Amino acid sequence: MPQHKIISDTISQLSIAKLASRKLAKSSNIDRNKALDLISNELLESKNFILTENQKDIEHGRKNNLSNALLDRLLLNEKRISAMAESITKVMNQPDPLGKIIKSWKHPKGMDIKQISVPLGVVCVIYEARPNVTTDAISLCIKSGNAIVLRGSHHAIFSNSAIVNVIHRALEKYVRGYSGMPLLGADVVQYISDKNRDETIKILQAEEYVDLVIPRGGEELKEFVLKHSKIPVIGAGGGTCHLYIDESAAEKIAVDIAVNAKTQRPGVCNAIETILIHKNIAPDVLPRLEKALLDKQVQVFGCERTTKIVKSAKPATEDDWYKEYLDLKVAVKVVDSLEEAINHINKYGTKHSESIVTANKENAKKFQEEVDAACVYVNSSTRFTDGEEFGFGSEIGISTQKLHARGPIALEQLVTYKYLITGEGQVRS
Amino acid sequence: MPQHKIISDTISQLSIAKLASRKLAKSSNIDRNKALDLISNELLESKNFILTENQKDIEHGRKNNLSNALLDRLLLNEKRISAMAESITKVMNQPDPLGKIIKSWKHPKGMDIKQISVPLGVVCVIYEARPNVTTDAISLCIKSGNAIVLRGSHHAIFSNSAIVNVIHRALEKYVRGYSGMPLLGADVVQYISDKNRDETIKILQAEEYVDLVIPRGGEELKEFVLKHSKIPVIGAGGGTCHLYIDESAAEKIAVDIAVNAKTQRPGVCNAIETILIHKNIAPDVLPRLEKALLDKQVQVFGCERTTKIVKSAKPATEDDWYKEYLDLKVAVKVVDSLEEAINHINKYGTKHSESIVTANKENAKKFQEEVDAACVYVNSSTRFTDGEEFGFGSEIGISTQKLHARGPIALEQLVTYKYLITGEGQVRS
Repeated sequence: MPQHKIISDTISQLSIAKLASRKLAKSSNIDRNKALDLISNELLESKNFILTENQKDIEHGRKNNLSNALLDRLLLNEKRISAMAESITKVMNQPDPLGKIIKSWKHPKGMDIKQISVPLGVVCVIYEARPNVTTDAISLCIKSGNAIVLRGSHHAIFSNSAIVNVIHRALEKYVRGYSGMPLLGADVVQYISDKNRDETIKILQAEEYVDLVIPRGGEELKEFVLKHSKIPVIGAGGGTCHLYIDESAAEKIAVDIAVNAKTQRPGVCNAIETILIHKNIAPDVLPRLEKALLDKQVQVFGCERTTKIVKSAKPATEDDWYKEYLDLKVAVKVVDSLEEAINHINKYGTKHSESIVTANKENAKKFQEEVDAACVYVNSSTRFTDGEEFGFGSEIGISTQKLHARGPIALEQLVTYKYLITGEGQVRS
Repeated sequence: MPQHKIISDTISQLSIAKLASRKLAKSSNIDRNKALDLISNELLESKNFILTENQKDIEHGRKNNLSNALLDRLLLNEKRISAMAESITKVMNQPDPLGKIIKSWKHPKGMDIKQISVPLGVVCVIYEARPNVTTDAISLCIKSGNAIVLRGSHHAIFSNSAIVNVIHRALEKYVRGYSGMPLLGADVVQYISDKNRDETIKILQAEEYVDLVIPRGGEELKEFVLKHSKIPVIGAGGGTCHLYIDESAAEKIAVDIAVNAKTQRPGVCNAIETILIHKNIAPDVLPRLEKALLDKQVQVFGCERTTKIVKSAKPATEDDWYKEYLDLKVAVKVVDSLEEAINHINKYGTKHSESIVTANKENAKKFQEEVDAACVYVNSSTRFTDGEEFGFGSEIGISTQKLHARGPIALEQLVTYKYLITGEGQVRS
């Protein structure tokens, strides 16, 4: 299979992306959907090619002693490729995020003013090992009319290049849009390969060509990007998420949610890291919670009051309250009141996802109002913070910042707006 | 008149603002409106005190040889104070930007998901000489439920301190809200006085306390803030705005808009700096435009084709196409086509406000679609890009970035959102 030529000069690639973004911005939803449909099909048809290339990354990873967890993130199989294709179709089926009239009104002097949604332009996604981020990011950007610059991990270079080549081929099948004008084409997707971070720094300085940078990975990657970027950044940061078990909580619900939010997938950002429990219910609930957590091999780090009840707990230090374990470990603290729980979360949390289990509606309301986080849950697991679970088709990470995008970064977060003002010669007096 | 004690320790002030923001976030629209009403009245009642203090800045400025333009920006008089009070009332009368349900839906497992608008928390505004920015920023922040940290110019220290003291007094009259709970109070407004920029740097590093920084001033201030800030920034940048006179333009409309957009107030960011004109209409329109501009003492810097027609024009250099003159100067370029005009604007513009004069609807549409700017005008003056003109009551500057806020930064730009998810024990499978 001939590989699409991947250009080696980063700045040229960025300028090609910028030019391509201007054409893409004018495309219709029909054009963009057709392109996504072709991409989804081409991905399924090229399954074997992608799996062969993925094996090279896996072998390379084994030789370089990558951890099993990392190898699992890298690994593709038929099921995972099908899921990637399916996810593209889900994005395709979302409503068009572009050209929406957000507001319209008349100026007293008679001009029409419209605020409408438009693409950002060129979006750069810098990510780590999971090859499915490649297809998620590409499909969300194309659907939202943005050209995309991808910079993935060198551990996934064979897999990512294969996926990008397949997508380029699909896009080349559809260079002429609905109107007969050339619209999409391989240029809207640029992959930049960069073993060290020299090329990444070039991207982060190229404010002329790139409109938004999204680092998707650990805190270290986010810090690196924020430090070097002259371009606006939406950080998909870590999640030190909490579950607070209120005095009135139903025990079964509390234990079920604690176990699900901690263990259903401990390595992800929406898993909980700390459980807070009201002092009046702690003596009853903590022993059953301990048993349920021990069944799942979870180690508890407890405050002084916790360790008196939970015999298997190790004492927690101040550091534990800040930690994102991303592992079968959890910090547990007994609190005197709902207020103490809220203050603890606002102090130690990362504004990602926080949950309360309670039968008291007033307390539920207070918790949702006063906890400062992207997603605040009542009687449900923090594990639902996810673009697909929220019905957005897919996502490029979870934003823990408050500006522009908060929570899942999906189609509606990949657009901006502009004001169109139409008059008949009006001037300001 | 006793002055309110202004705390001298910046970090203490920021932490007080953060605490105050949590209370303010729970206030009702009635509470916030009542506070704004009191502020507006107190400002009018304290007119003489403010004018006396303002005179100290003016005298100080004269001694320090400030330019007349800067002294004019600093100067307050009865009319200007009345305008400030009126502007606060306009903000008060805007709809409540908080607690809006942006979206709501049901998760397939039955949880209710609501996306609602909430305050950002603490907003810091760093600004230059105009004292009315103090009241505009305070009223917009209070109405949107945000505590505010102000850092104004040391040239305006007496005026700003006087205004803040008056506002503090008004807020203290209303420490108990609609519900009888203490809600607002002087703490929601913090003024930080800082002759050099040491304290400003402290603010910019205090991500724990401040959620957003808005520099309002020249490009140098914006660069300084972007360089030092660990906190998200919305830059109110400069405006190199254009007027494009299309082949089909009505001459009178073209000349009227050019003169208005250039001369009605040349020192502001929404004034035009460059006029582009189609080659087929240039020989007819440029002579009349020259006359109209000369009547207003405007110096033209022209491209080669322009200088052949406009005898008073000096030759423009490449540099002129980038310039924000903020003065009675304008660059003029003859272009071959609409495409050339759009490409010129997208290359040299600052994404602020751009206008086309045309009788051709297709060209108007193409211009509005393809020009990448916050506000794109057809047959009207760029001078309308302004929070009050747009009906937003007021503004804290015009954003030229695409993230979060584009165009006038007013109430809707000072909020973020959160997702509230309410279930009955749902876990993820």
